[in-house]
Amino acid sequence: MTLTEDQKLEIELIERPRVLELDQIIGKPFLCLDHGFIRLIDYMGDDFAIVQAARVSYGRGTKTVSDDKGLIEYLVRHRHSTPLEMCEIKLHCKMPIFVARQWIRHRTANVNEYSARYSILSDEFYIPDQEHTAPQNKENRQGRSLDYLDDNEYLAVSENLKIHSKNNNILYHYLLNDEDKHSEHPGIARELARIGMPLNSYTEWYWKTDLHNLLHFLSLRKDKHAQYEIRVYADIIGDIVKQWCPLAYDAWLNCVFEAKHFTRKQWEILKRFSNILSISPKGYNYCKEEFDIGKREFDELMEVLKGT
Amino acid sequence: MTLTEDQKLEIELIERPRVLELDQIIGKPFLCLDHGFIRLIDYMGDDFAIVQAARVSYGRGTKTVSDDKGLIEYLVRHRHSTPLEMCEIKLHCKMPIFVARQWIRHRTANVNEYSARYSILSDEFYIPDQEHTAPQNKENRQGRSLDYLDDNEYLAVSENLKIHSKNNNILYHYLLNDEDKHSEHPGIARELARIGMPLNSYTEWYWKTDLHNLLHFLSLRKDKHAQYEIRVYADIIGDIVKQWCPLAYDAWLNCVFEAKHFTRKQWEILKRFSNILSISPKGYNYCKEEFDIGKREFDELMEVLKGT
Amino acid sequence: MTLTEDQKLEIELIERPRVLELDQIIGKPFLCLDHGFIRLIDYMGDDFAIVQAARVSYGRGTKTVSDDKGLIEYLVRHRHSTPLEMCEIKLHCKMPIFVARQWIRHRTANVNEYSARYSILSDEFYIPDQEHTAPQNKENRQGRSLDYLDDNEYLAVSENLKIHSKNNNILYHYLLNDEDKHSEHPGIARELARIGMPLNSYTEWYWKTDLHNLLHFLSLRKDKHAQYEIRVYADIIGDIVKQWCPLAYDAWLNCVFEAKHFTRKQWEILKRFSNILSISPKGYNYCKEEFDIGKREFDELMEVLKGT
Amino acid sequence: MTLTEDQKLEIELIERPRVLELDQIIGKPFLCLDHGFIRLIDYMGDDFAIVQAARVSYGRGTKTVSDDKGLIEYLVRHRHSTPLEMCEIKLHCKMPIFVARQWIRHRTANVNEYSARYSILSDEFYIPDQEHTAPQNKENRQGRSLDYLDDNEYLAVSENLKIHSKNNNILYHYLLNDEDKHSEHPGIARELARIGMPLNSYTEWYWKTDLHNLLHFLSLRKDKHAQYEIRVYADIIGDIVKQWCPLAYDAWLNCVFEAKHFTRKQWEILKRFSNILSISPKGYNYCKEEFDIGKREFDELMEVLKGT
Repeated sequence: MTLTEDQKLEIELIERPRVLELDQIIGKPFLCLDHGFIRLIDYMGDDFAIVQAARVSYGRGTKTVSDDKGLIEYLVRHRHSTPLEMCEIKLHCKMPIFVARQWIRHRTANVNEYSARYSILSDEFYIPDQEHTAPQNKENRQGRSLDYLDDNEYLAVSENLKIHSKNNNILYHYLLNDEDKHSEHPGIARELARIGMPLNSYTEWYWKTDLHNLLHFLSLRKDKHAQYEIRVYADIIGDIVKQWCPLAYDAWLNCVFEAKHFTRKQWEILKRFSNILSISPKGYNYCKEEFDIGKREFDELMEVLKGT
Repeated sequence: MTLTEDQKLEIELIERPRVLELDQIIGKPFLCLDHGFIRLIDYMGDDFAIVQAARVSYGRGTKTVSDDKGLIEYLVRHRHSTPLEMCEIKLHCKMPIFVARQWIRHRTANVNEYSARYSILSDEFYIPDQEHTAPQNKENRQGRSLDYLDDNEYLAVSENLKIHSKNNNILYHYLLNDEDKHSEHPGIARELARIGMPLNSYTEWYWKTDLHNLLHFLSLRKDKHAQYEIRVYADIIGDIVKQWCPLAYDAWLNCVFEAKHFTRKQWEILKRFSNILSISPKGYNYCKEEFDIGKREFDELMEVLKGT
Repeated sequence: MTLTEDQKLEIELIERPRVLELDQIIGKPFLCLDHGFIRLIDYMGDDFAIVQAARVSYGRGTKTVSDDKGLIEYLVRHRHSTPLEMCEIKLHCKMPIFVARQWIRHRTANVNEYSARYSILSDEFYIPDQEHTAPQNKENRQGRSLDYLDDNEYLAVSENLKIHSKNNNILYHYLLNDEDKHSEHPGIARELARIGMPLNSYTEWYWKTDLHNLLHFLSLRKDKHAQYEIRVYADIIGDIVKQWCPLAYDAWLNCVFEAKHFTRKQWEILKRFSNILSISPKGYNYCKEEFDIGKREFDELMEVLKGT
Repeated sequence: MTLTEDQKLEIELIERPRVLELDQIIGKPFLCLDHGFIRLIDYMGDDFAIVQAARVSYGRGTKTVSDDKGLIEYLVRHRHSTPLEMCEIKLHCKMPIFVARQWIRHRTANVNEYSARYSILSDEFYIPDQEHTAPQNKENRQGRSLDYLDDNEYLAVSENLKIHSKNNNILYHYLLNDEDKHSEHPGIARELARIGMPLNSYTEWYWKTDLHNLLHFLSLRKDKHAQYEIRVYADIIGDIVKQWCPLAYDAWLNCVFEAKHFTRKQWEILKRFSNILSISPKGYNYCKEEFDIGKREFDELMEVLKGT
């Protein structure tokens, strides 16, 4: 194997990547809902790790930060996802079971969940606050309307949920017969006693995934159509990602989360009834200043419009 | 591209693989627990599809069934799993949510679950029968003991679970306010009303996976340490696999499910205190007749023993 | 378990899904490049299987084809990919190794490749034809320019490649010493003899994947930036998908392959310099007729434009 | 959320896990074959991270190292693989293409490979040394015999490979027309010029995977049936894992890599012709001292033998 002198020097200087902002929050709980949390356990890589993998390079190289930013934006815009897979994050999360059931559908992740076959469940239950206790959305079959219940209505709903959760817990310990030992039976196995527990019981897990799949999780779960109770978790994770890989996070916001997609038919209708210019009359320099857009991103827009 | 005349002839005769036994049961529900089922929806491939992929061959070829059997056994014994991935199966399953939560941990599968954000849940709840309502296992922290409750004890436990489930259902419809419309609130969104539902509520899904991953599922879920309520499903799926790919299923029983594994230390202890022969004194032919063992499988045993 | 009478009747009538157009081409080779092919080996499901999984329904149900079409378009437009994973396809493919190396990067697939450790490689090599032997693209660092070589230039290049491939083959058999047995050595192992073979040697494999991942493969490999030699295979696979699941294929063309994406910044620039109407002045009925657009797809466009 | 005082204290003390031995080798190349290497780029977690995830605990807890060792052994012995997935490693690897082609078959990994569509390939080629240039194994259809070539035979073989590789390189630059610019054509695109390159050309990539999948990689590629040229890489990776997670590595050696597996039929034959004791006559304490076996591992052996 032949390494150049430059490569040898670079290698000599290599240290493990770390992100100071993240090191300071490791282990600290960020609270979610009434009893849940997100805790950052560990991470691998940073913005530069994406660049390094994309270039299959030996070290930090001689490129400038602005080159790195442009490359990351290019990768995200063109869905070149493999370099983003080179960053990994591990979180400890506590959430209601109905949230966990949505979350687990993201299959490309590693999970270790607290087991109610081995251990006794806690007596914590999620009760939505008034602001988020809303009627069914009439237009969108899967969500809530923007209204919420008035004080009396909310009181009726929330008190019922609370009493119900409390009864659940009483049943659980009756079935386990683990506390007062007054039940008229020997207690049944933990794996069976839990089956009456409701979906608003809390569970927890260690969850580990790579940045590409994490951003995909955020795309679905930070979206306004996501159920509020999982969106809360996605928002906090988003804040962590923003500190961890700020360039990749910004690129994702611009190129994915806040991007606009038009089907071929939609685009044809839009073009038919609009007056779309095939070039920017003020040119790239103006747009750069006004919109902070990169040259390549700008050129790609011009390329699309050229066809209109 | 040059195909030989034999290959051309083979190609001419190719039809889509089908398994008559399976075609007869497509769509029929096999009942599980008190309200659950497994229904076979579709399948791809059969025992021969495994052989065909392992050989990367053009058609059924001129090999005998006995060659195919030997090859499949070899593949399973040596964990050459990719040819087994060439068979795929799709099932429609209905099971309690706590079973679904274990099941979904098998990530290499495709799943579409009934959504309680869109639709109203059924009012069916799993209540274990007396035979399976057992106390905690004292030795094994995650399972049940072999005892079960006597008549009175079972009555107390099961009636409590039933009443509880009934109350759950009443709460659910109170929260939805979808039936008598007498509740003092406008009804809350389906995605929120469901959060009081217990883990013994039934859900259903379409589930699709390949034979390799299915056998791995069976290895874990047909095992005596699996929770009874998921084992019931694994047993029925096992029966379907036995009809679908009988050679692969038999090979899996012999080489995986009923195999013995010894750690290096365990094997050293076993050898130290036992009198293990380095060869079979009666030879292969005897063993073939007595144990129905293949030549290669026998030789591999002799190879292991030679070192002892 | 309680099935309604309607469900029972539906179940009685269920047969395994089949697609007549596909049954007729099973096993037949579609030629690609100079020595390669694609052969359809088997498939699971059809357009309706997507609908069935999305609805977690018992049978074909009473919905019309137009409902199915609308649902499939909705699923594809909103990237609800799990119902598309319910269709599976298996192909036998023969391609140059450099094509196989790009292809294998699609990880969510099952593959069994012809092994040059076990078997002797064929003596077929890919030589590009004149039309596709092009200089480097100056603007796009990874592609070809639109020019191609003139007759003499092509002759020089292609003859060199041919002679080179022939020499490769001679070396291979020299190393194996498997033919004339005149080499001054005993022949080296197949796994070693192959290492001099060039990347334009042909290999083959069985490849199986689901419709969602297949469409993702097509998105990348039918794209004009894909290398010509893999695009040829993607085009043929696309033709097979069009016959297999015509509704899903059309939805993918409209909503993914021929869709337009704008980053937030691009969209802001476009809006700034264009005169975009917030509603279609001719209304839905006109657009339906003119563009064959669905109501929901149209409404979603209006929703986006409302913000402009 | 309610954390106990102990949990709060634990959380206060948490730092990012690091392994000093690994920090010292980050970035340094470990040489493999004639031009290849493995470089450790980054890692996440350590032995304790496995324990932490298995217990879904808040911090390092109060358990002793000996408890941790026992738990890790238990997890590995019983194939509870999810806690091992909580450790992740990233390597920069350079290897011949035929090695890369075997390696990439491990699908549960993240990969960024040097692209010969974008960049010019190096002129390094793998030439096996005399010790590893062996004839085909007569018994094992996929491997090499233990013999190797004598001096003259090796000279003939290796010189031929060298000349051939050199010619390959000349062809490559002839096709690119990138050096002397004397070729009678304008140079063809990089993506096309590379197709004559042989499988013993070197490529490189960033490769990232979790500990569970890495150990599975080692199980297959450190095995004596693996091709020598990939085994060299597996051996070096094994040495890194041994420093990274020594408890997990030892457990894997004992419970997987050096374990013995018997099919049901093999075990029946072994029992028939051997005199196997159902218990260890010297008891656990003797075996603990002699074999360093854990209590649970010993008990599980006794459990298996009880049935004989």
